[in-house]
Amino acid sequence: MPKRDTICSISVAKYIEQVESFHGYAAPGLIIGGFMVDLAYRHLPQGVLLDAISETETCLPDALQLLTHCTIGNGWLKVVNLGRFAVTLYDPNTGDGIRVYLNPAKLEKWPEIKTWFFKLIPKKEQDTKRLIKQIKEAGSDICDYEKVKVKLNKVAKKHRTSLGICPRCKESYPVADGDVCLGCQGNAPYLIN
Amino acid sequence: MPKRDTICSISVAKYIEQVESFHGYAAPGLIIGGFMVDLAYRHLPQGVLLDAISETETCLPDALQLLTHCTIGNGWLKVVNLGRFAVTLYDPNTGDGIRVYLNPAKLEKWPEIKTWFFKLIPKKEQDTKRLIKQIKEAGSDICDYEKVKVKLNKVAKKHRTSLGICPRCKESYPVADGDVCLGCQGNAPYLIN
Repeated sequence: MPKRDTICSISVAKYIEQVESFHGYAAPGLIIGGFMVDLAYRHLPQGVLLDAISETETCLPDALQLLTHCTIGNGWLKVVNLGRFAVTLYDPNTGDGIRVYLNPAKLEKWPEIKTWFFKLIPKKEQDTKRLIKQIKEAGSDICDYEKVKVKLNKVAKKHRTSLGICPRCKESYPVADGDVCLGCQGNAPYLIN
Repeated sequence: MPKRDTICSISVAKYIEQVESFHGYAAPGLIIGGFMVDLAYRHLPQGVLLDAISETETCLPDALQLLTHCTIGNGWLKVVNLGRFAVTLYDPNTGDGIRVYLNPAKLEKWPEIKTWFFKLIPKKEQDTKRLIKQIKEAGSDICDYEKVKVKLNKVAKKHRTSLGICPRCKESYPVADGDVCLGCQGNAPYLIN
């Protein structure tokens, strides 16, 4: 039986439905991410609008986007890719927050999660049903949390600088980027057909 | 009356509800973003799973996350910050896609949108009701689209490299990052209390 049957006051089953709808499938990392965000909230003051940091690009940004008001497009979620499986929720006025991270030492009790997390066997050999069962049973027991003070200047929401019209493509661009836009400077990842 | 009363086969009103729920408020850029994604889909083959690029961090990633299966956490959405108000949807197997961009020349007919987009007056003086009305009336008429060939190697989904345990923080990290993780190398945007 899972230790907690809710994630941020919705049922685990309902959360997994939301994950499937948003993310495309019930990714194991995103289910763990739900328990991580839930753990953070349990140690944070209620009624404060919090900002969020994900230390990986994989899965965890979506847990934060589903369970908090922070998204990539509104700027309250920042991905600071340190390659660690961790999230932080913090007060954007003071920087005080809670960081939750997966503790690898705690995976010893959960062999299926350990095997999946460290990719110890090929994906097709993974027993997904058993993996998801262990993730639900473990909940946030595979995680730890710590109080942090976020350096607000490192994660501040950038305010858009003055826009001009690029003389080459005729689109709008931040004039601080140079005489022509970054796309016309050769950074566009596509060719126009 | 709006030229189109649907965005990706949901009503504009329903889309705006989803924007409010996910993004926190009915951001003008995100409503325009909805019409942009809708325009792209109208010029793309049906039944192909597409990947997405946003050329700005602001608003447009959320339009893509709401209307496509591409999210930051599943890796099918990439933000390539060129500072331009543009989205691309493309076939990840061939790179063939459609890029939709806001055409500043077309804003002359829509003074409220132009004033908002170029921040010509302070936000508090903006007539939000009139702005949203113009955005709905304009639909994708303020945008253009072009066929593109995405350079797949520039936007390829990164496959996670081998993980180890950081000898300093004891968390997991990509061993390719060095002897200790990027957080312990001084890149963490917080202090631990």
